Amino acid sequence: MLERAKSLDAADPLAKFRERFDVPGGVIYLDGNSLGCLPRATPARLEQVVREEWGRDLIRSWNSADWINLPQRVGAKIAPLIGAQPHEVIACDSVSVNLYKLISAALRMRPGRKVVLSEAGNFPTDVYMIEGLEQQGLAERRLSDRGDLLEALDEDVALLLLTHAHYKTGEVFDMEAITRAAHDKGALVLWDLSHSGGALPVDLNARNADFAVGCGYKYFNGGPGAPAYAFVAERHHSDAQQPLSGWMGHATPFAFSDDYTPAPGVDRLLCGTPGILGLAAMEVGVDLIAEIGIEPLHSKSQKLSEFFRQCLLESGLDLELVSPIDPAQRGSQLSFRHEDAYAICQALIARGVIGDFRDPDILRFGFAPAYLRFEDMAEAARHLAEVLETEEWQRKEFRERAAVT
Amino acid sequence: MLERAKSLDAADPLAKFRERFDVPGGVIYLDGNSLGCLPRATPARLEQVVREEWGRDLIRSWNSADWINLPQRVGAKIAPLIGAQPHEVIACDSVSVNLYKLISAALRMRPGRKVVLSEAGNFPTDVYMIEGLEQQGLAERRLSDRGDLLEALDEDVALLLLTHAHYKTGEVFDMEAITRAAHDKGALVLWDLSHSGGALPVDLNARNADFAVGCGYKYFNGGPGAPAYAFVAERHHSDAQQPLSGWMGHATPFAFSDDYTPAPGVDRLLCGTPGILGLAAMEVGVDLIAEIGIEPLHSKSQKLSEFFRQCLLESGLDLELVSPIDPAQRGSQLSFRHEDAYAICQALIARGVIGDFRDPDILRFGFAPAYLRFEDMAEAARHLAEVLETEEWQRKEFRERAAVT
Repeated sequence: MLERAKSLDAADPLAKFRERFDVPGGVIYLDGNSLGCLPRATPARLEQVVREEWGRDLIRSWNSADWINLPQRVGAKIAPLIGAQPHEVIACDSVSVNLYKLISAALRMRPGRKVVLSEAGNFPTDVYMIEGLEQQGLAERRLSDRGDLLEALDEDVALLLLTHAHYKTGEVFDMEAITRAAHDKGALVLWDLSHSGGALPVDLNARNADFAVGCGYKYFNGGPGAPAYAFVAERHHSDAQQPLSGWMGHATPFAFSDDYTPAPGVDRLLCGTPGILGLAAMEVGVDLIAEIGIEPLHSKSQKLSEFFRQCLLESGLDLELVSPIDPAQRGSQLSFRHEDAYAICQALIARGVIGDFRDPDILRFGFAPAYLRFEDMAEAARHLAEVLETEEWQRKEFRERAAVT
Repeated sequence: MLERAKSLDAADPLAKFRERFDVPGGVIYLDGNSLGCLPRATPARLEQVVREEWGRDLIRSWNSADWINLPQRVGAKIAPLIGAQPHEVIACDSVSVNLYKLISAALRMRPGRKVVLSEAGNFPTDVYMIEGLEQQGLAERRLSDRGDLLEALDEDVALLLLTHAHYKTGEVFDMEAITRAAHDKGALVLWDLSHSGGALPVDLNARNADFAVGCGYKYFNGGPGAPAYAFVAERHHSDAQQPLSGWMGHATPFAFSDDYTPAPGVDRLLCGTPGILGLAAMEVGVDLIAEIGIEPLHSKSQKLSEFFRQCLLESGLDLELVSPIDPAQRGSQLSFRHEDAYAICQALIARGVIGDFRDPDILRFGFAPAYLRFEDMAEAARHLAEVLETEEWQRKEFRERAAVT
């Protein structure tokens, strides 16, 4: 398969972009869906922000380096990659905090309804943020299995909150059909794009989405704990009010009034002072993904994951695939179930093949198409086959759980 | 005065610390209370985080570089500088977001009471975050002038939220007396230390404080939009529950359960994935302030501001001081009222003397004692006198307002 991989790499129109990332030697990195690789341009940009904008120009950079508009600028660059207009997206805070803002805004727009419906087994922070509002007496959390969601969608539902591509299995929702079904019941929809933004085509406005959030540190390569982004459809700009009404979301923050007046549009999603270092690093990652383009990334992602699956099949491996077998139905990942998934993951990491484990039994491989090669697929599949054949994952050192799994 | 300044600098035990900061040439920086200077060690530390921890070690750094404990580690380093125990402080999110968490926690601990009392003219974000909860129907905002606060403190008050050193005037509250008065009425107290942490002695536990938040980018020199910190007194660790219940505040985040169980202690204040770049930069600033020591910093700060005042007096300037004249009653700043404060501030900036303006008529000078010299005081006072005498602030270019003032 290695020969075949090399010829696929030779014909890959995105191959040249690998060198725009600092992919470490000796590593096959199948975890770009958890933390994206470092773009080569990032260290120099950060050095400039730190030494020149902060160190030399100090407080003046809020104006001279336009720090004050960085959340909007990064948001506007993400917008076309998720089917939004530039003024509908802003980069700030974390996914979790933005979820809280938008769930709250939706509840307020549907007085008389308290239910926020989500999927059981959705990414934890999504369902926890609903729970936070439930503890405040402001929401009622309803979780339903994927197959029963449409049935659970009734006229008590203020908001349907779903993750577009499931973090564990990679299953992708039909955004258009689900959004329509929710609207038919008078509910709003909030899409979590953490596992799709920057990797899959997302067309929020064409699908009539109301709200969305997404992650900066996965496929956008923004760095560890990078700021998140949030989308509010233009038609909701005047109605969407959120309770984290910090000074940076004020219409005139530097008037220092005692009373809060929300800024127009998505600017009102800002809360505290934006983290400039994180935003500056994120901008580099977003620029790079925008330069490559979502369609070519998605096309390569599907080819990578299919080639990986083929390599596994040719090794005679019989692992239980929990991701959809149709690449059009899944995100940029393949997940397998194995009762010793944790130890297998550790054994692979020891060999330089970095995937990740998701409790209790999922071995997850992410395919960040911007910097992965078909050669990596062949090699990763070979290592996985060897680890399973030799049972080297049975070693004690691979079974001890670290703080972060 | 310049001669006198130079001899004061020669005798200054903190003079040697100036070179630990990258203070730009040609600038007298009197705005460290808005954005602290860049520590010289920060760029190298950030480069290490970016190139090695992120670029080379990638996702493994959550364990190997202990990213997962960075919020707690930075919090524990801040703790002794504000009179707290290491496990009572955590660094994360923004001041605004942390205010929301702690106001909510306090309201929940005082069922039957809805009033959150604060000072009219407190820093806007503090009063706006109460307003956010008021809009949700969870709080009732009560603002009172400073002199009437104790009178406004009745048994409807769940929480008293005050800024220890006022952002505009620098007036410092008597933390012990106010906290006692609030407790006598059964109210909790949340102190915003944004303008005191890292500059003034703060002794949260000795004053019996309940909660506190503070800013990372002012006197702690953490960089633009650095993460904030939050304090919860140990006695409240089991009762304080906050609604921004994101996955990183879960007792076992990597169990990926559908149900939220708060982590013990201040760890439950975490919400989303912490911003590692911001936290890493902040740690360098906190380490440096800890090395210098709060007492020597405070002592020098008082001497600097007094010397600046003397220089102004000797110039024959008659500016209206709005800060307390007693240095023990004010933070590390001096603020003056002038109807043309904005233009004067701009004229000074054009001369390299960077203070700031606070709407509508306040000219504010902050004295970050870690890197300022007495010589800077003499020179800044001379420039201010010249600007006023020559009326150069009348020029048109100094009157046009920038986005950020």
